[in-house]
Amino acid sequence: MSEERAVVLLSGGMDSATAAAWAKARFRWVGALSVDYGQRHRLELEAARAVARQLALAEHRVVGVDLRAFGGSALTDALEVPKGREDIGRLIPITYVPARNSVLLSLLTAYGETRQARHLVIGANALDYSGYPDCRPDFLQAFARVATLGTKAGREGKGFALHAPLLHLTKAGIVRLGHTLGLDFALTFSCYDPTPEGLHCGACDACRLRQRGFADSGLPDPTRYASTPPFERG
Amino acid sequence: MSEERAVVLLSGGMDSATAAAWAKARFRWVGALSVDYGQRHRLELEAARAVARQLALAEHRVVGVDLRAFGGSALTDALEVPKGREDIGRLIPITYVPARNSVLLSLLTAYGETRQARHLVIGANALDYSGYPDCRPDFLQAFARVATLGTKAGREGKGFALHAPLLHLTKAGIVRLGHTLGLDFALTFSCYDPTPEGLHCGACDACRLRQRGFADSGLPDPTRYASTPPFERG
Repeated sequence: MSEERAVVLLSGGMDSATAAAWAKARFRWVGALSVDYGQRHRLELEAARAVARQLALAEHRVVGVDLRAFGGSALTDALEVPKGREDIGRLIPITYVPARNSVLLSLLTAYGETRQARHLVIGANALDYSGYPDCRPDFLQAFARVATLGTKAGREGKGFALHAPLLHLTKAGIVRLGHTLGLDFALTFSCYDPTPEGLHCGACDACRLRQRGFADSGLPDPTRYASTPPFERG
Repeated sequence: MSEERAVVLLSGGMDSATAAAWAKARFRWVGALSVDYGQRHRLELEAARAVARQLALAEHRVVGVDLRAFGGSALTDALEVPKGREDIGRLIPITYVPARNSVLLSLLTAYGETRQARHLVIGANALDYSGYPDCRPDFLQAFARVATLGTKAGREGKGFALHAPLLHLTKAGIVRLGHTLGLDFALTFSCYDPTPEGLHCGACDACRLRQRGFADSGLPDPTRYASTPPFERG
């Protein structure tokens, strides 16, 4: 285990929770940052809190950024969330938030600098979410340079390292990795359009990717869905 | 004048106001973004509003980001602001905000993307503020790449261009440029430690740089300072 410190972006979804579990297994001190960027529901933030507790992270901070001030996405606007699209992963999704990972990683860099943590961890994934330009390897590499050049800590020390341990995993691979690291996936939350009771809808893109991931992994899916999942589970 | 659109970071200080005036002279449509990152006083935001009005910018948006959640700087904490230091521009100042320009430029990128504006304008200055790592040319160049790679607009279009028109100007050069462009500097606000009435203190680093800039420019300083400026004015 490294004696250095890490900070991880923790949205409360299964990817960021797995990234947090990966960081916890690797670094002596891990702090988690959740960014409340004006989501329509707060279930993700509650999930993030629960995951940080389960993984016994050193701390969990929540920073608010109100991206609704300029709108432009279904995740932050009151637009309808698309369901059952056949082009998952091919097109840039309507749930795209402008420059989201730039904003999130900048805040993570600021948080890391204040905690003497030079390792930045993000659960970005190049396969399932290839529709998001800011999950791609060239973007992440470019951002690591920004973090190093844009901070006192980066200039004076060894520089920031950006880790994306899920980048080349399938959703099933993420499920297996999280399972191996002892992550309780029942605490994580993926749905773009939950029921009033806080259940996963079972029909939006995020639910479908989640279901498919568990099905393909051969591991049980602990999620309670409002509607029947379209995939057979093992 | 370019038919393309630009967005500019407008803090309300003399540098960002001059950058906004530069953008207004160059682009058909200019939107300004102010970021309220939990400053101790709101005089800067009021100044930004007044400057946006004076320059007749197309719009002015304010986004809140609460960096106080992790602290670490005199600009956002309740620490004492240093006065009369002899090392302006040599050391990284105590008023340094972690990763500030990364956070600000990410938000500007998001704003620009929603407005179909591919020109990002920032009043960063390499001379007077060389203590800030995120005002240096290599950082700005690295960020332009992040903006282009991290957005749908950047990937699909011509990419973002990052302009820092004040980068190699002295403070006196900035005063002269703003004056030429018709900017009313009386509307701008620089002080880290204003009086309860909202006057510039005349003693903090920012006031001293401001005073020196007007003195060296040979142009009149319209600022009302609470204490006598240490520089002779022409």
